[in-house]
Amino acid sequence: MPFSEISVGGFKDATSKEAIRQGFAEFISTLIFVFAGQGSGMALRKLTDGEKRGMEGVIAIALAHSLGLVVGVAVSKNISGGHVNPAVTFGAFVGGDKKLSLIKLIIYWIGQFLGSIIACLLLKVATDEMAIRPPRLTEHYSVWSGVVVEIVMTFGLVYTVCATAIDPQNGSNDAIAPIAIGFIVGANILAGGVFSGAAMNPAIAFGPAVVSGSWANHWVYWIGPLFGGGLAGFTFEAFMTRPPKSPVPR
Amino acid sequence: MPFSEISVGGFKDATSKEAIRQGFAEFISTLIFVFAGQGSGMALRKLTDGEKRGMEGVIAIALAHSLGLVVGVAVSKNISGGHVNPAVTFGAFVGGDKKLSLIKLIIYWIGQFLGSIIACLLLKVATDEMAIRPPRLTEHYSVWSGVVVEIVMTFGLVYTVCATAIDPQNGSNDAIAPIAIGFIVGANILAGGVFSGAAMNPAIAFGPAVVSGSWANHWVYWIGPLFGGGLAGFTFEAFMTRPPKSPVPR
Amino acid sequence: MPFSEISVGGFKDATSKEAIRQGFAEFISTLIFVFAGQGSGMALRKLTDGEKRGMEGVIAIALAHSLGLVVGVAVSKNISGGHVNPAVTFGAFVGGDKKLSLIKLIIYWIGQFLGSIIACLLLKVATDEMAIRPPRLTEHYSVWSGVVVEIVMTFGLVYTVCATAIDPQNGSNDAIAPIAIGFIVGANILAGGVFSGAAMNPAIAFGPAVVSGSWANHWVYWIGPLFGGGLAGFTFEAFMTRPPKSPVPR
Amino acid sequence: MPFSEISVGGFKDATSKEAIRQGFAEFISTLIFVFAGQGSGMALRKLTDGEKRGMEGVIAIALAHSLGLVVGVAVSKNISGGHVNPAVTFGAFVGGDKKLSLIKLIIYWIGQFLGSIIACLLLKVATDEMAIRPPRLTEHYSVWSGVVVEIVMTFGLVYTVCATAIDPQNGSNDAIAPIAIGFIVGANILAGGVFSGAAMNPAIAFGPAVVSGSWANHWVYWIGPLFGGGLAGFTFEAFMTRPPKSPVPR
Repeated sequence: MPFSEISVGGFKDATSKEAIRQGFAEFISTLIFVFAGQGSGMALRKLTDGEKRGMEGVIAIALAHSLGLVVGVAVSKNISGGHVNPAVTFGAFVGGDKKLSLIKLIIYWIGQFLGSIIACLLLKVATDEMAIRPPRLTEHYSVWSGVVVEIVMTFGLVYTVCATAIDPQNGSNDAIAPIAIGFIVGANILAGGVFSGAAMNPAIAFGPAVVSGSWANHWVYWIGPLFGGGLAGFTFEAFMTRPPKSPVPR
Repeated sequence: MPFSEISVGGFKDATSKEAIRQGFAEFISTLIFVFAGQGSGMALRKLTDGEKRGMEGVIAIALAHSLGLVVGVAVSKNISGGHVNPAVTFGAFVGGDKKLSLIKLIIYWIGQFLGSIIACLLLKVATDEMAIRPPRLTEHYSVWSGVVVEIVMTFGLVYTVCATAIDPQNGSNDAIAPIAIGFIVGANILAGGVFSGAAMNPAIAFGPAVVSGSWANHWVYWIGPLFGGGLAGFTFEAFMTRPPKSPVPR
Repeated sequence: MPFSEISVGGFKDATSKEAIRQGFAEFISTLIFVFAGQGSGMALRKLTDGEKRGMEGVIAIALAHSLGLVVGVAVSKNISGGHVNPAVTFGAFVGGDKKLSLIKLIIYWIGQFLGSIIACLLLKVATDEMAIRPPRLTEHYSVWSGVVVEIVMTFGLVYTVCATAIDPQNGSNDAIAPIAIGFIVGANILAGGVFSGAAMNPAIAFGPAVVSGSWANHWVYWIGPLFGGGLAGFTFEAFMTRPPKSPVPR
Repeated sequence: MPFSEISVGGFKDATSKEAIRQGFAEFISTLIFVFAGQGSGMALRKLTDGEKRGMEGVIAIALAHSLGLVVGVAVSKNISGGHVNPAVTFGAFVGGDKKLSLIKLIIYWIGQFLGSIIACLLLKVATDEMAIRPPRLTEHYSVWSGVVVEIVMTFGLVYTVCATAIDPQNGSNDAIAPIAIGFIVGANILAGGVFSGAAMNPAIAFGPAVVSGSWANHWVYWIGPLFGGGLAGFTFEAFMTRPPKSPVPR
């Protein structure tokens, strides 16, 4: 949808009912997404009792995140823009959404992080107190490789958001946007999941970290996604958008 | 689609040919959905002969329900609204669909429950009399945890229905609605399937219970989905819909 | 799309260039679909060397048919209506497509059966002469149960085609039609694949039978799909379509 | 979209900012696609430590390529036409896109091949220097069978691109195009992946070959896709497109 649609006004608007409503939409979307994603990992642990996990486990986790994010984006797309990810909100901010004020970014982030925390608390109850596990780097794996892979994968995710959901010249992709955004996360988890955990989203790491209390390499899931997301927002805005005056291809 | 489209009139209409037609559409959609979903569980049991089931089994059941529901919604969306689930009909009722009279809700429920029963009877024949199994709680699992997970997952499902299929401000998501509705069920089964059975739908539990005669914890699959679905309908109506007078974002 | 679009004229038209073109479109769509579907079964046999197949094998075959049919329908939808299945063409014929003359049905069938045969011949070459296997009933399984399951599953498939691709009141589902049609086949294979083979399509059985020379229970894959497809076409036409004069819901 | 939209002008335009922009869009799309596809194969090798791979591995690789290509096409569709594959660009060229000059084809190819190389270099870092592996023929397999299967599968892929993304009479399939294009690749990998590697795309073979230095049977992944893609472009243009004067079916 056009920037103007996901846009949020200055301070005055930021404190308006609409701003709270958008933050609440991000809260519910992120809760739905994290509940399915984190929950699929817990289901896998329950089934395998710690046996070595095979590729079918990675497929299940990739599908849960992919299908869950298609939904998370679809349900809040017309209300808040369907970010469901602090790195996406940051990328849109860097990508030149003039109306996305800093305070609005903060409101979105609060909704997203709270949604992730509540999802994890509900999963504690839903699983009779099974452990929550934040994404983590695989054993004997360089933390810097983890940062690189999170940057590359989040670049792909936020670039997809810019091209299908935000670019005003792309209204025709209205139906494809939630699908493409969910699919890139599924594809990247199939590739990077066994290496870095493939969070591409600080909220996916923060909620489980708060509930489980394990903060190992937590910063990787902030630096990687925010840098990759910001780079994607800047790249798309700088090189892929056309000036309004230029002829639009459709 | 707009409420008006899935809406059903008062008593006079409720007894009209259109009402029966809508109930029949829900019957066929639910039959198609339950046949694939319950059938995939029976196929798994036939292949594994009671061996411990792995994650590939959960993936198969999640996919069968997800793909089957995309279809169930798509084929009745323009006729009855594509509920395919008594909890969705209840959520729409609670969500303020003024034209969805109680008698129409009953007609929808009859179509949905009958569709599930007939699907199970057909599966008995199709599988040479294999056993039908209602969704059930995993061993050593708290029944109250089961209620909680069914509430949370059905909230996500019915919230998705409200946001993509019912919200009149969301006509542009016409193509995404059946996809998002089917995908949230697939994502939630990958997370909650091994814990509560992840019905999110009283019809999925009722049909198999009638045909198999096993009613263990059956009430969980009525209380959880109806409470979660009603809460979602109320939440979306109360906080996410805009007054007609306010500017619509698209 | 409206009936008029997939419609084909009387004898004069039937011999026209357009009719041949539509038959050729069905030929290519069926070739693409059968190559992926039958090929996935051969890939599974190559990987498992006759070991007992698990659910991951069923998932692979269901996905190959599902994704392949989404494509087969999408590529010929605007040319021939995207039937890719003699039972769908028969269902549309029974469903009251006045312009679908018998000779046009025959032209479609020729394209579909030829596409399946050529796909199997290409697979013989592509796999260094591996055996082609028609769909078959599982061991110790009643042939009549096979007929029933093929009827039920093909009813679901052709009902989906009628509701999403043919119903003129459903133009808004233009993008969802190929997706729903491919998904119902995937969902039904996950349920019925291990019992009846889940063909739902005489072309899927005929091509492999011709190339492999094995005709065991071949009639099941004609009677089941044609009866189920015809019943679906009749049911949708008789109960689900509205008279043009009545108000259309969108 | 209409040919005119993916079209690129003569030499003057070819050197224009727009041409570079389109090449850059192909670069990013191919990078995203190859990162997920090649990465999923590396994830599988990390999990299985060289044990015999089962069908779940093929499913993971098929899903990663399928989901990744849906995204790759969706993000560049409105900018460069979403080719993400030198064989698609060649097929469009052969398919009669009069405005796709040879120099524009070269710019697209440079973007696509560079995207694949950079994706592989990033994967080297992201996986702590794991080996990159180009697609390869299975053991004891005829190289000519490999050429045949790549021709057939790429024919299906490029025919799908022509029918859903390029055919000007098919604007209604705007949302289905990226989905169908990604799905045909997933379906074909499930069928042909264990035989020929199922590249259907010279860029998928070239990038890994450059980074790994292994060029065994590399020519197969140029001859097969380019011949199959060119044949598809010619076939669709010659037999499936209607003259502008003839009545368009929608």
